[in-house]
Parts: sequence; C-alpha cells; structure tokens
Amino acid sequence: MTGAFLYGNFIKEAKSSDVRRSIKSHRNSCSLTETSFFSSRRHMTRLPSITPQRHVFTPEATAEQRATSKTSEENKEILSKNDQIVEGPKEVESQQDLFQVEELYVPLEKREETLREAEKLVKVTLSELDLQWLHVLADGWAAPLQGFMKEDEFLQSLHFSTLKLKDGTVVNQSIPIVLPITNEDKERIGNEQNVALCLPELPSRPVAILRNIEIYHHHKEERCARTFGITDPRHPYTSIIYESGDWLIGGKLEVLERIKYNDGLDKYRYSPRQLREEFRRREADAVFVFQLRNPIHNGHALLMNSCREKLLKKGFKKPLLLVHQIGGKVKDDDVPLDVRITQNEAILEEGILDPDNTIIGIFPSPMIYAGPKEVQWHAKARMNAGCKFYIVGRDPAGMKHPGTNRDMYDPWHGKKVLMMAPGLEKLEILPFQVAAYNVKSRRMEFFDSSRPEDFLFISGTKMRKYASDGEEPPHGFMGKKAWEVLAAYYRNKRNE
Amino acid sequence: MTGAFLYGNFIKEAKSSDVRRSIKSHRNSCSLTETSFFSSRRHMTRLPSITPQRHVFTPEATAEQRATSKTSEENKEILSKNDQIVEGPKEVESQQDLFQVEELYVPLEKREETLREAEKLVKVTLSELDLQWLHVLADGWAAPLQGFMKEDEFLQSLHFSTLKLKDGTVVNQSIPIVLPITNEDKERIGNEQNVALCLPELPSRPVAILRNIEIYHHHKEERCARTFGITDPRHPYTSIIYESGDWLIGGKLEVLERIKYNDGLDKYRYSPRQLREEFRRREADAVFVFQLRNPIHNGHALLMNSCREKLLKKGFKKPLLLVHQIGGKVKDDDVPLDVRITQNEAILEEGILDPDNTIIGIFPSPMIYAGPKEVQWHAKARMNAGCKFYIVGRDPAGMKHPGTNRDMYDPWHGKKVLMMAPGLEKLEILPFQVAAYNVKSRRMEFFDSSRPEDFLFISGTKMRKYASDGEEPPHGFMGKKAWEVLAAYYRNKRNE
Repeated sequence: MTGAFLYGNFIKEAKSSDVRRSIKSHRNSCSLTETSFFSSRRHMTRLPSITPQRHVFTPEATAEQRATSKTSEENKEILSKNDQIVEGPKEVESQQDLFQVEELYVPLEKREETLREAEKLVKVTLSELDLQWLHVLADGWAAPLQGFMKEDEFLQSLHFSTLKLKDGTVVNQSIPIVLPITNEDKERIGNEQNVALCLPELPSRPVAILRNIEIYHHHKEERCARTFGITDPRHPYTSIIYESGDWLIGGKLEVLERIKYNDGLDKYRYSPRQLREEFRRREADAVFVFQLRNPIHNGHALLMNSCREKLLKKGFKKPLLLVHQIGGKVKDDDVPLDVRITQNEAILEEGILDPDNTIIGIFPSPMIYAGPKEVQWHAKARMNAGCKFYIVGRDPAGMKHPGTNRDMYDPWHGKKVLMMAPGLEKLEILPFQVAAYNVKSRRMEFFDSSRPEDFLFISGTKMRKYASDGEEPPHGFMGKKAWEVLAAYYRNKRNE
Repeated sequence: MTGAFLYGNFIKEAKSSDVRRSIKSHRNSCSLTETSFFSSRRHMTRLPSITPQRHVFTPEATAEQRATSKTSEENKEILSKNDQIVEGPKEVESQQDLFQVEELYVPLEKREETLREAEKLVKVTLSELDLQWLHVLADGWAAPLQGFMKEDEFLQSLHFSTLKLKDGTVVNQSIPIVLPITNEDKERIGNEQNVALCLPELPSRPVAILRNIEIYHHHKEERCARTFGITDPRHPYTSIIYESGDWLIGGKLEVLERIKYNDGLDKYRYSPRQLREEFRRREADAVFVFQLRNPIHNGHALLMNSCREKLLKKGFKKPLLLVHQIGGKVKDDDVPLDVRITQNEAILEEGILDPDNTIIGIFPSPMIYAGPKEVQWHAKARMNAGCKFYIVGRDPAGMKHPGTNRDMYDPWHGKKVLMMAPGLEKLEILPFQVAAYNVKSRRMEFFDSSRPEDFLFISGTKMRKYASDGEEPPHGFMGKKAWEVLAAYYRNKRNE
C-alpha cells in the first residue's frame, strides 16, 4: 500500500475558464477539483491554495459589512427572545463530554494484512455516491454506526430515526446509510461472510472490507416514503434509490486508508476527530456550526454573527464558528463545492465573518434533500465532531416538490422536529428567524413582519439567476469579492 | 342529559336474512348492529344476547379440536425456541405497574355544566370515523394522549413513533390520531379557544369539547408516506386521508358521556379500565392478547393455545387470553364485526379455545392497514389495558399494495419493528411461526419448512372465497359451528 487513495483521478480535465482566471485574482497555486458528481457540471479548475485561519478582520470593511458583522438593536431583540434556550458556559465541560467517535480505519500496522485478505474476497464495486457514504462512516460522522446498516438498523432508522445500543442508549440516526447491491452481486456473494468493497473506477482495488454481512430486500418505495415523505421518483435522491440495486448489504466496515479526493480541497475535509482536536487546540469553549450547501450571503452572515454575540453575552469567552459545507453529491442546480469554498473564503477575507474565530470545513456527506429527516442527520454528525450549538433556519434540507413545485416540507417542520429529536439532547439548537433584504436600509436584516413592504426575499434560485444572467444583486446582499466568485462561475458556465 | 349517546341509530334497518336465521340457531334475543362504516355492507341483523364467560369446555370436543387446544410435540419445540423471551411470574407484579390510563370523560357532576358550555361553542361535526377515534381517545387506549394531536405531537408520532412527556418519559404512539377539518370549519372557528365536537348525524348535539385548540396544515401526502410507506390514494385509509379536510385541529378532549353504539355489542366494548378491573377480578397473573380483524381458524387457535401452554410452563398459574376484535372501520372485504364476534363465540362454545380463560372483547379503533406502524399501535393500546403479553405473527395489519397487488410490507417487518419499538419495553412480545393446514394429518399445524409439500396455506382471501362460493374448507381448518356462522353470512351476501 502506498499513499492515499486517489478518488479525484476519474474526473475529467476541464478547459481553462473565466472562473479560474477570476478566482486566481485573489489566490495562488494548488489544484481544486470539483467533486460533486450529480450533474454535467464536471470540470476542473485550478485554484490557489487556501489556508483557513490566515484571515484578518480588515479595517477596510465596508459599512455594510460592519453592519452585518455587528449586532443591531433588532438583532438584540431576537437574541433576548431566544435567550432562554442557550445555556451559559457552566455547560462548557460537556463540550468534551459529547459522544466520542470511533473511526473505522484499519490501524497502520494491520493495513498490509487486511489488504491481502481483501484481495482474496468477493469484490463489490461502489458507486461514487456509495464511496461518499463510506467516507462518512469511516470518519465517524455516523458513529456509533459501525458500517453500512443491517436490516435491524435500517428499520430503526426508518421508523424511529434512532438506533438503540446494547446498553440501552438511544442515538439519533434519522437517515438510513445503506449499500445497495444488484441481484448479480448477491449471487456472486453467495454464502460469503465478508466482502471487499472496491473503488468506482478501479473495481479490482479494495477500499474496505465489509464483515459479517447481511443481505436483505431493498424496499425502495417504503424507504423513500419514510425518509422523504414522498415517493415521487423525480426527486434528486429518490431517483437514485429507485435506480439502485434490489438488495441492501450491511456489515461492519474496516476501511484500509483515509479517503482523499486530491482535488485541492482535502485540507478542508477534517474528520470529527480532527475537528475536536482543532477545537481543543484553539481552546474554544463553544463551537457553533452552520451547515451549508450554498454560498454565504449577508443574511447568513448576520445570523452567524448574531449567534456569536449571543454566546458572548451568555459568558462564553471563545466561541468558534464552523462554516461547514456539504462535500458530497448535490443536485444539479446547486453551486459546486469548489466555488462555494472559494466564495466562503472570500467572505472571510472581506471580514464579513471574523476570520480569527471561524473555520471553513467540508462535511463529506451527500445531500439527500430530506428536510426534517436530514436536518437531524446534519446536526447529529456535527455533534459527533464536538460541536455544541447547531444553527437551524427556515426549511433546512428542503426543496421544491418535484410534482407540485411547492415546498416539499412545511418550512418550519425541520426546526420543530430537530428540537424534539431523540438522541440530540446534548446539542443545543439555535433556531433563527428569516433574514431578508431591507430595501430601505439596503442591507440584510432579520425580517420584521410589521413592515413586510420594506423587505425583499432573495431565494437561492433568485440569487443564482442574478449571477447567471450577469446581473448584480442589490447592494448589500453579498460581499463584493464573494459575489465576484459566484458571478465568474456562472459567466463561465454560460460560455461553456 | 339523559342516557348514553346513540350512535347506532343512523344505521339503516336491514332486511331479514339468512345470516340472522342461521345465527339465531345458537343464540336468543337482543340486537346486534353492524358498526363497520366502510362499505355498502350496511345492514342490521338481530342476534341473541351474548354473554362472555358462560362457556364451558365441552367433553364432546372433536379430536380435531382437542388437537388444536393441546400442545403437540411440534408445538413444544416452538415453545422451547421462544422460551428465552418469556419471563416467568416473578414479573407478575408488573402486571399492575403498566402505565395507568386516564379516561377523558367528564365527571358526572360536571356533565350538565359542560354540556351547557358546549352548546354555546362553535360546533364541528365529526365523521363516523372521527367518532371512532374520539372513542379510542376517550377510553384511554392512546393515553397519555389527552385529545386529538397538536402539531408537536403529530410530528413526533410521524417521525419517531413516540411522544415525549414533560418528565422525559417516552411513550409509544406510532400512528397520528388527528382530526381533519375543512377550510370552512377553520373560518367558522376563527380565533376561538375551544370548540364543541358533534355527532355525525346530529350536528347540533355536542359529544365533547376540544379545548385550547391548535389548527395546523394537514400535510396529507407526507402523512401517508410516513405512516403507510406508500402515497398511493387507492389504499383504503390513504383514500380517506386525501379526501379529508386540509387542516388538522388538535386540543384537549373532554367527552360528555361514554360512547355507545346500541348494536348489541356494547357489552364487548370494555375500556382499558374495565379490562384491568376484570383481569384483577379474575386474578389473572398473565394476560395475553390476540389482535384480530378476522374470524378465528384452527391455526389461530393452535397459536393461542400454545401461548397459554408456554405461560403455564413458565410458572404462571392463571393466564388469561383476551381475544380482541377490531371494532372500528375495516376495509370492504373484511368480515363485519357482528359476524366475527358471533364466530368467535362459536369457537368458545365448541371448546376450541378454553372459554373459562378467555375474554372476547372489542377494541374500538378503526383499522388503518399500516403494517409495522399499526402493529405498534395495536400493542400499545392493549398495554394500556393491562395486557402484559402481545402475540404477533406474519404481516400484522398488512394488506396487498393497491398498485402492485404484492404484500405492501415485508411480512416480518411488523414483528421486527414491534420488538424494537421504543415505549413498549414493558410489554412482552410473543412472536410466532406461521400455521398452515397439514393435508396429511388434516389439521392446522405450525409450518415445517423441511416438508413444505405437506402444507396448504389458506389465506383470509381464500377462506372468504370458500365461504362465498358455498364451499366447505378442508376438514380441520375451522370449528364446524364457527364455519357455519361465516358460511351463513356469505350465503346471505350472495343472495342480497
């Protein structure tokens, strides 16, 4: 065994592009490869090295930036409304108490031996999506889950959103993490106890051993219904489920090596253990996390800065923000990972978020767009990484219904379900109000329902439309450099 | 207020029929009205009074009956297989420990006053189905649920199959018990805090007050998906959901009087409290329950008798069997309640079940055909009634998928989910193997997979076909008198 697995190598080399040139203007060296597998958006951009934590709060920050990075009178009102749900630093010790994660990587000294064993086993080829889930499991984001689910775990997850451990502890696991296989695979496996899982593009190369396997029926319609609340096959993830194998294979995972994508973004892919270590190193006494699959606009920033203010007010001395981008598969019209990360870095550069107290990271999970089920997964995984505070807003992990084009989920169910979810009791949920663009003050503010006429809602779709039409969004909607990252990406896409 | 509510009075008078005459041959006096609202099967039959507990184990029992009411060598094998899951009488005291139920009926001394209040409130008319759910709630089958669900309860039930009480206790509640209302109702209610719920056929007559109400969106597709694992509107209960109002109204119920149907079957409708009282009176040290929406054949009897043997073997002195028939709405092709009860009584008369240690009762809940979700409801409700042991078999509360005509649920998921369900830890689940007709020994036996050729599976559909075609089932399939009850019903139906 030499070096880390190369998962980026199957991604096609992209032509030079506007986005590359544009981003180059505030970066230098290193390759950044798009790792989102969904769409036809596969291209490669060469981007400069990005080192988190090197940003400073620039004195040149615009008035608009200062406005969003400070807490306005209005914000203070929101804070006081939510005060009762945030516990002060007396709880700091529990920052360490949170469930300790177990990684599923084979220890270095056993690697050779395990690889030799794996090479003799029946081989099952993973899809790129399966590999992302394997990464999630191996890192311990889904701990204490020890591998792809067996049927008992699958049923518990589907019906109760939890897993019950042998000692009676109930942990949250709201979405099934399963590995579909075909009839053919099943026949090839026969009565084997263990199988080797192999790379999508290197089907002879084992990534992991799945031990003590169980094969059971993949009840696709029921899985979709209970996970997504719809069975419509036009949803970006139900469509994948319907097209996948008719069987699920579960077992205990032993992963041969850390998963690397060699796309220039691996440095952002901290595992839960690495994040915990980093939080300790920085002596953070309250880590709050913001889950994203989007670029950051000033409404998001307002919110994150408000949360920081709230924690400081509560007596925490060193609150730390984790801006955590979804790293796995996203739907076609979402902004690609490399662009999102570059945009997020620009936000820190511009001082819209405080670079000294912010970490940008990548969460390797795919998005599944399962609303109230998925928001629990997003929260639980970050709890595993040692985060104590989770920010949740309107319609988390939601999207339009593929049949009706209305919101698939009640936009407030995500927050409500998250706050009631079993197994997340140690996590403090920070719900927030909607931010919108105030056309009078020309900045993002928390929406005030007493004067709706002052506010303009700019959805992700609307934002993408501005960018792809080459239009500027209203002044104060997003940091200038950050907007340019997006604009360049869409300009490039338009010209492709 | 005088007397009990009359809910039977809207049911059309039926013509005299074969079934009436047939059943009369082993009964005398009293009226029995069909209360299943589903289909066009609305008719009325006059049946004799039925007094549970008056049966004796007749010495004339046939060899076949003796075979099924005793434990064969084969049965002993099954018992020993399952031995580890049944705890002995050291647990007897916990028979009393099980969750104490609270009924939602207004105390006698407050009834007049509450009725006067109700008459002044905005009135909401219940459907017959709503009324059945109200009955379920009022009796305490769904305790500690205090009324139709508010949104928080609805979401917990949908996502976690549980409700979390203020003290942190988690109770099972796997299906939402909700009250749909129309846009019109919602407008009429306006900002009222309390409403009066009224009888389906007497919309000016309050049955109950719903207090401190909350009105929220009825997300029908999502409700169906998460409850049934399908969204197909051709399912007998999803069709009702899709046709119901766009809003749900929740609140605390105060029910003015006990619900009576005046159909001759009210004496079987023991509430959980009444059952607990009866179990105490009989000094039962282990109550085991058999949930039914079907007539009893000798396979069922084999199983119930095996369970009894098992409990005796474990050291219980007075095991008591509750044969508990679904009393609410069932799908069109299920056998009507009155016929089922008469058939069950015949089984006791014939000594196929021991009449001294068996209670026949009616559980007022509708069937919803939600498989693994509903079996939890069936078990939880009986736990509320003080039952300690719950029998579960193949495909509980299952049916054919309305689209594919295959089993909607994996036939063993019900058992598996039930055994893992949170909030049911105090209930002991008695899983059982499939019984089938042994064509060689000509009796129902536990299926032996080593000689499948010896066995014939007679489904409910097949059984109904025998009866409706006027054919006899294989000898030994069902007690003779009991079969005649069924045959007469279908003869009558054929001639209608």
